[in-house]
Amino acid sequence: MQEKASETKKIITFGEVLMRLSPSDNRKLLQATQMDFFFGGTEMNVGASLANMGVEVQHVTNISNDIVGDAALATLRKYGIGVSAVKKVNFPLGLYFLEVGSSLRSSQVSYNRLHSSFANISPEQVDWQKVLFDAEFLHWSGISPGVSEGAYQTLKAGLELAQKRGITVTVDLAYRSNLWNYGRSSREVLEDLVSLSTIFIGGVNEINELLDANFSSDKEGFIAGSRALMEKFPKIKKVFDKVRTSVNASWQKIYGQCWNGEKYLKTTELEITNVIDRIGTGDAFAAGVIYGLKHFSDEEALNFANAACALKHTHMGDVNLVGVEEVLEVAKGKTDGRIKR
Amino acid sequence: MQEKASETKKIITFGEVLMRLSPSDNRKLLQATQMDFFFGGTEMNVGASLANMGVEVQHVTNISNDIVGDAALATLRKYGIGVSAVKKVNFPLGLYFLEVGSSLRSSQVSYNRLHSSFANISPEQVDWQKVLFDAEFLHWSGISPGVSEGAYQTLKAGLELAQKRGITVTVDLAYRSNLWNYGRSSREVLEDLVSLSTIFIGGVNEINELLDANFSSDKEGFIAGSRALMEKFPKIKKVFDKVRTSVNASWQKIYGQCWNGEKYLKTTELEITNVIDRIGTGDAFAAGVIYGLKHFSDEEALNFANAACALKHTHMGDVNLVGVEEVLEVAKGKTDGRIKR
Amino acid sequence: MQEKASETKKIITFGEVLMRLSPSDNRKLLQATQMDFFFGGTEMNVGASLANMGVEVQHVTNISNDIVGDAALATLRKYGIGVSAVKKVNFPLGLYFLEVGSSLRSSQVSYNRLHSSFANISPEQVDWQKVLFDAEFLHWSGISPGVSEGAYQTLKAGLELAQKRGITVTVDLAYRSNLWNYGRSSREVLEDLVSLSTIFIGGVNEINELLDANFSSDKEGFIAGSRALMEKFPKIKKVFDKVRTSVNASWQKIYGQCWNGEKYLKTTELEITNVIDRIGTGDAFAAGVIYGLKHFSDEEALNFANAACALKHTHMGDVNLVGVEEVLEVAKGKTDGRIKR
Amino acid sequence: MQEKASETKKIITFGEVLMRLSPSDNRKLLQATQMDFFFGGTEMNVGASLANMGVEVQHVTNISNDIVGDAALATLRKYGIGVSAVKKVNFPLGLYFLEVGSSLRSSQVSYNRLHSSFANISPEQVDWQKVLFDAEFLHWSGISPGVSEGAYQTLKAGLELAQKRGITVTVDLAYRSNLWNYGRSSREVLEDLVSLSTIFIGGVNEINELLDANFSSDKEGFIAGSRALMEKFPKIKKVFDKVRTSVNASWQKIYGQCWNGEKYLKTTELEITNVIDRIGTGDAFAAGVIYGLKHFSDEEALNFANAACALKHTHMGDVNLVGVEEVLEVAKGKTDGRIKR
Amino acid sequence: MQEKASETKKIITFGEVLMRLSPSDNRKLLQATQMDFFFGGTEMNVGASLANMGVEVQHVTNISNDIVGDAALATLRKYGIGVSAVKKVNFPLGLYFLEVGSSLRSSQVSYNRLHSSFANISPEQVDWQKVLFDAEFLHWSGISPGVSEGAYQTLKAGLELAQKRGITVTVDLAYRSNLWNYGRSSREVLEDLVSLSTIFIGGVNEINELLDANFSSDKEGFIAGSRALMEKFPKIKKVFDKVRTSVNASWQKIYGQCWNGEKYLKTTELEITNVIDRIGTGDAFAAGVIYGLKHFSDEEALNFANAACALKHTHMGDVNLVGVEEVLEVAKGKTDGRIKR
Amino acid sequence: MQEKASETKKIITFGEVLMRLSPSDNRKLLQATQMDFFFGGTEMNVGASLANMGVEVQHVTNISNDIVGDAALATLRKYGIGVSAVKKVNFPLGLYFLEVGSSLRSSQVSYNRLHSSFANISPEQVDWQKVLFDAEFLHWSGISPGVSEGAYQTLKAGLELAQKRGITVTVDLAYRSNLWNYGRSSREVLEDLVSLSTIFIGGVNEINELLDANFSSDKEGFIAGSRALMEKFPKIKKVFDKVRTSVNASWQKIYGQCWNGEKYLKTTELEITNVIDRIGTGDAFAAGVIYGLKHFSDEEALNFANAACALKHTHMGDVNLVGVEEVLEVAKGKTDGRIKR
Repeated sequence: MQEKASETKKIITFGEVLMRLSPSDNRKLLQATQMDFFFGGTEMNVGASLANMGVEVQHVTNISNDIVGDAALATLRKYGIGVSAVKKVNFPLGLYFLEVGSSLRSSQVSYNRLHSSFANISPEQVDWQKVLFDAEFLHWSGISPGVSEGAYQTLKAGLELAQKRGITVTVDLAYRSNLWNYGRSSREVLEDLVSLSTIFIGGVNEINELLDANFSSDKEGFIAGSRALMEKFPKIKKVFDKVRTSVNASWQKIYGQCWNGEKYLKTTELEITNVIDRIGTGDAFAAGVIYGLKHFSDEEALNFANAACALKHTHMGDVNLVGVEEVLEVAKGKTDGRIKR
Repeated sequence: MQEKASETKKIITFGEVLMRLSPSDNRKLLQATQMDFFFGGTEMNVGASLANMGVEVQHVTNISNDIVGDAALATLRKYGIGVSAVKKVNFPLGLYFLEVGSSLRSSQVSYNRLHSSFANISPEQVDWQKVLFDAEFLHWSGISPGVSEGAYQTLKAGLELAQKRGITVTVDLAYRSNLWNYGRSSREVLEDLVSLSTIFIGGVNEINELLDANFSSDKEGFIAGSRALMEKFPKIKKVFDKVRTSVNASWQKIYGQCWNGEKYLKTTELEITNVIDRIGTGDAFAAGVIYGLKHFSDEEALNFANAACALKHTHMGDVNLVGVEEVLEVAKGKTDGRIKR
Repeated sequence: MQEKASETKKIITFGEVLMRLSPSDNRKLLQATQMDFFFGGTEMNVGASLANMGVEVQHVTNISNDIVGDAALATLRKYGIGVSAVKKVNFPLGLYFLEVGSSLRSSQVSYNRLHSSFANISPEQVDWQKVLFDAEFLHWSGISPGVSEGAYQTLKAGLELAQKRGITVTVDLAYRSNLWNYGRSSREVLEDLVSLSTIFIGGVNEINELLDANFSSDKEGFIAGSRALMEKFPKIKKVFDKVRTSVNASWQKIYGQCWNGEKYLKTTELEITNVIDRIGTGDAFAAGVIYGLKHFSDEEALNFANAACALKHTHMGDVNLVGVEEVLEVAKGKTDGRIKR
Repeated sequence: MQEKASETKKIITFGEVLMRLSPSDNRKLLQATQMDFFFGGTEMNVGASLANMGVEVQHVTNISNDIVGDAALATLRKYGIGVSAVKKVNFPLGLYFLEVGSSLRSSQVSYNRLHSSFANISPEQVDWQKVLFDAEFLHWSGISPGVSEGAYQTLKAGLELAQKRGITVTVDLAYRSNLWNYGRSSREVLEDLVSLSTIFIGGVNEINELLDANFSSDKEGFIAGSRALMEKFPKIKKVFDKVRTSVNASWQKIYGQCWNGEKYLKTTELEITNVIDRIGTGDAFAAGVIYGLKHFSDEEALNFANAACALKHTHMGDVNLVGVEEVLEVAKGKTDGRIKR
Repeated sequence: MQEKASETKKIITFGEVLMRLSPSDNRKLLQATQMDFFFGGTEMNVGASLANMGVEVQHVTNISNDIVGDAALATLRKYGIGVSAVKKVNFPLGLYFLEVGSSLRSSQVSYNRLHSSFANISPEQVDWQKVLFDAEFLHWSGISPGVSEGAYQTLKAGLELAQKRGITVTVDLAYRSNLWNYGRSSREVLEDLVSLSTIFIGGVNEINELLDANFSSDKEGFIAGSRALMEKFPKIKKVFDKVRTSVNASWQKIYGQCWNGEKYLKTTELEITNVIDRIGTGDAFAAGVIYGLKHFSDEEALNFANAACALKHTHMGDVNLVGVEEVLEVAKGKTDGRIKR
Repeated sequence: MQEKASETKKIITFGEVLMRLSPSDNRKLLQATQMDFFFGGTEMNVGASLANMGVEVQHVTNISNDIVGDAALATLRKYGIGVSAVKKVNFPLGLYFLEVGSSLRSSQVSYNRLHSSFANISPEQVDWQKVLFDAEFLHWSGISPGVSEGAYQTLKAGLELAQKRGITVTVDLAYRSNLWNYGRSSREVLEDLVSLSTIFIGGVNEINELLDANFSSDKEGFIAGSRALMEKFPKIKKVFDKVRTSVNASWQKIYGQCWNGEKYLKTTELEITNVIDRIGTGDAFAAGVIYGLKHFSDEEALNFANAACALKHTHMGDVNLVGVEEVLEVAKGKTDGRIKR
């Protein structure tokens, strides 16, 4: 792969930072006395993956004004994310409990985020003019506007300015039915925001959800759905999707597909036989797409994103901490996992 | 000490069950990747201490309808607490983060309980008629009615019935200024509830808070304050207090004092030079008082409570897990901590 | 599946509670400094699985009168098992060391149970009249009567009363050659006890062992063996069996089969590719059978038991802690292990 | 201190190797899911301390023929103890559970050793002729002959041969009332064995126990008791004793005293304010006495033993792992614990 | 205390980043299977303490070009330290093993730093013009120039430019005899560098070492020594010193003294009775001095530094992570360590 | 298999002992706070495997004169390796960091060994006359002579004496390109040393490396290469090789092949589907070859070595700790991993 001239402009991510709490050693919460914890959140994960790959990233969010918020902030800094747009407010940080599944047992997630510091964000707390200065990408997901009216309005203000500035807006439409409790329909909100976006990350499920359509889940359905999406939202230029086969919780297969307005692209399927951590794999894909759009052709970007996604399954935490070089190796087919000395 | 004929009637406790999360190994949260967790809560701690001593206890509360609530429920059962009055509701369990202090560094606590399953309790969720059947004691603390209007009203309903039934009502007035956000003044509420109580656990600070008074913190102030308290709240028959000298976070001294309406009682001071866990020591004292009132004279009860309080400092968790025999030994002066084979 | 009207009568289990000690993190004992511990024992595991599914269970056993016994008792309570028939005696709790195998390396078990508190049980220590009051099922395994004469006689007394009372007696014939040191032949004892049982859990191996026969291990052998068994022990009404293919220690396949006196039933095979803990999987099957007999048709019961067995492989500990709903999902074919939010 | 010419002859220790199991992190067993484990046993601890100081040591015992025995054996080798007289037999290794106390809470010990591999030792299993070849010291404690008749007889055979060979026999009379269940009185047995010993490690308590006497616990009582002891057991040449003041479980003071037949010796008192592990401190003293007798004057030996005992309180495990140089520094008064770079 | 107008200019620290490896749980390395690790180094610790207090800090060093260097870099970022002057080179990161002492047992340190990435630093690798732009303080210690000729020359270049620019140069003369293996005498080098410094952190020992003098260790000696120091090195304006009484490794007392050219200042003594981690306490003092010089009077600065030093003893790691508010509280006398809710 | 008369002569191994440091729980170093550590090194691993199988082994090396060296020495003793030829010198022990890979993510290794205690070994430090007394085998690998000139010369002296004495010299040619920094070409050195060796462990890659040849990697290439090797190095009598298929880091397949000068031998392929630890698997094969040469026919030896190699993948650490009996079972085809009670 040949790199495009790297642009030094920064990437902005907007979304909640959550603390993840998991009983250690495959225990059920009932049996445990200790929990491992991580900080994550879909857009922050994208940002951290990109920062880890050497890209300049800034994250926009509210965190709690306590020892938990201090630790979240330190973690953002640790991953190399710029924190000048992170505000401390007097509400607790959102969190979730995760009982990690295995083989044919599913992971169980239980959220505590409805009254979080992020849910209390409001447009006047973010100086988008300053945040978006010198930005190249603005990334959001379908989770954030589902949290609260404030999150929706804050995000919308950002997207509108981004469009004015010609900033590429990427959206990962990860739809979550158990949010959206604040009085608006998800479709209404997401339509509003997708209409301000440029790159769509999602597949037939998300397109059907958004368009109230019924495209089939095969290649043809993906192409037809993507076309319909672009028709309704003409700012959307490309659709990137990862297709997952869940053999079971510990054994996953992944391939990427893309409709870039001109042709259908597809990667080989990667297989992860001993999954370490399933969380954040979609975010690793999204980060891979963005990194790829900055540096590679669409085809190379898709391969890169798929490899990044596969590699996220193989280590702990919400964030993909594998470097560009290792991702490229897997993208080029080296999947034997031999020791590097 | 000679035991009074043990009555088999049960003890009811009412209050929130919280998950405590602490970074392991004296780390700051910022430095940690793991947390130890415990379930506690001031009244539940009292109940668990009593159950551990062989008393029949039932706890009244709401917990979350998820894996966290399942684990809380299992913990209550494990400690031998009756759980037939524990309800599962669709709100998250309250929790707090504790960064454990040491020597001249204070512990830091950060709460996430304002929208918890317990805060959403309401009088119609508790069948007090059934709960108080065959009860001898009902225990509450000044924390619960500070959480929400629902907690206040639910508790009040229970206290009123308890008074009708002639059940002894014990109150530990542990005052917390950072609660009481739901629109009522703490004094108004606490006056209302203390007027329905029989045994007051607290000292000059709590009495001054409640009476808006200014008694001195010495023996004379304690006696005068206790008398004033009993005058205002004539159902109160006895006042039990533990007096703490905090040399530093790792070195504490404790003695108990009591005004039983007739005379002033005081224990010797116990010294804990290498504190393991400070949380729940007041609850261990309250449980000791209740156990003592069931089985011993006031003087023996006070000694027992003070020893129980001291011993709680020496092991992990919110609950005093030391048995009656060991508490009695310390109450009788055996504080050398020699190995028992 | 349609549930039969749930009967509220309780289930009694009888057998040893053992402490399991395993070096953490796949270490050999030789390399370790820490051990994970669990409390289990084949009949207690069945009881705990059932209690976890909401059934009322009471366990009959002797435990040690020390801190180990205290912890065992607390664990029984935690799982929701009734403990009024658990006695504390001055003998140590039985225990075993388990070095957990992986892939083509076998797990190694080393027992220390010959002089345990349970081995010292005797018929006069159990008030079977009281224990079996209002009971619907009594469950035992072929391990318990192999421990000591006292265990054999105590169990026999219970089975005889159960038969008089019309209680369903389930037996899991898990045969262990390294027991049976107290002077009786295993066949003599097991014949005696199986003749008092109603539901037989076991396969061709166990039938051959019991009948000194040589049935083949295929479907035909299983049917013929089951028929021969029922002929010799006419109280036996149904035979439930799980068939395991051990690809290696980390990869197992399981299906269930049943001869209910009328027809042969068989489930699809479930595959567990990343086994977390192999211990207690047979007990999860037995518990599934009993739960199924209470609530479902034989076919549904068999599917339920097989799914429960498969799910036990996927988490730590001797006890199946997966709930009814999750078991039903797997029983109905959802084995992809996708995250539940 | 000036070292005596070091003799290269070896030291023999005889006694049980036990596995110690303690819940981690100051938890009660009831609250824990993990245990730390160590191998120890009073005479083995003495041997390991000496081996760690560079002395050639051989230990005589029976261990279990399983993964637990393998780990015990590896631990002996790791400490540099010769294992050619360690036999594997088909009985489980003895073990004990230790709930570690703190401040005014005592440690709790619960044993499981009555049917252990060591309890099943018998004289024909030990080739004392070979074991005592080239030996300078043979060390035993009052615990071993309390375990079983076989242990008593095996030890006696060794002591008799040692006396014939002119080997110095050291005895630490650590008396344990909860042993001695095999039908002999402790006094009868201990008198028999002390009469074959040369160096007595113990104080007024042990002397009173042995002589059925009532010497006072002050200096005068110690001298008078030692004289009476030597009168009754004329082979005894010197008495070494450590005097412990237990401020509480976490704060100990220690000094040593000695009656060497000619004069009374006493060390300064050492203070351990933050005890890490109390187990094995007496054995560290005994090892210090033996090391001292080999290399130093009586006064220096006493100082050395007292410092070794104090240092054992400051690290985990049953064995003193502090080297000669560090012990000498403390013996000479350097107790400030400053970092060594 | 009243804060001086905060200047926003940054603070530069120069020195090695080391990985510290310590066996967990007070174990000796010999007994352990796990180590806790931290990144530290005397000047980095100062920088991290200051960054944690909200000051802008930049650290100058070389780290390894591998996973260890990646983790070191992430840690610097996490603490909020600017890393634009950190270079990755193909030499391993320096490290040390620390066996943590307790009570009268000393900690043992073993270094592996002689061929480290920092030891291979050279003047041309640091662009001091750029680094010192907008700097207010440059901090160094006596350790760095003892590592290698390159470290000495690199530091000297920085100090010379700092003097030209009028930047305050602070030096903590922590002398280590086991460095200085590269062919220069420590006195020659340190004289050279102290002559370029403004604030001297150290006491009579360091002054005697530097001046080859023999001042007494009392107040008079400190004043006389400070005067002599300033005479010889006229750029030195103030001398700050902490005086430690090591009761034992777990119990320390600390007070600060200062000669500011005009008068002698002294703090009250603070006592730490249960030391958690002794490492980095001197660096916490130095950071406190620098923070104090920026914001407070000399007397307030000394109190602040002493409180910061005391608080560093109470938590894990090389870096003081306690915030300004907490330090001020202790500086003002609140040392009871009561819980903060 | 029939054992050959066991010869009691000992086996000598020569090479570096390294400390391995790995972040626990599949974490990246960046995310971790704890590391697991092990001591290993290719030839020491071979020695420890053999000692674990009951063979008398002595290891020749230099270790550090500090707490790390103490722990390394204790580990050698623990595994039953003779340590009389291990010297303590004032250089740090070599070490490496290992980030453990999983599925398609590779493990990453980072070394710190260039200035280690072993790198500083020299011929005059080893008394080969004494070491090789009564030896039957001397084992070396291609790693040791790549470390330093001193290591090369020391090894060469040993090999020359071994040849004189008729001792079988086994070489595992594990080639590492990132060593060989001391000024000699690897081929020159390895040719020199292989010419002094008897048994060659390696495959076509190693043969091609050594002979600068280009044999194909199939059976024919292996036979042709082995013949060419024996032609050039006529002392070589047999070539043993393991062939690895790396499905991914967690899934490996292994078979062994041998050219014994007369015929080609090959084992069945063993599959490890859930790899626990890949490190030391080649050394387990080499130890299996040596054990096999001592006790079995070539064919049995090859099967044994292949099974030992497979089993090393299934537990933690650098050393194969599985016993002879278990290896033989797998060698004979029992790979189902069923529990052994």
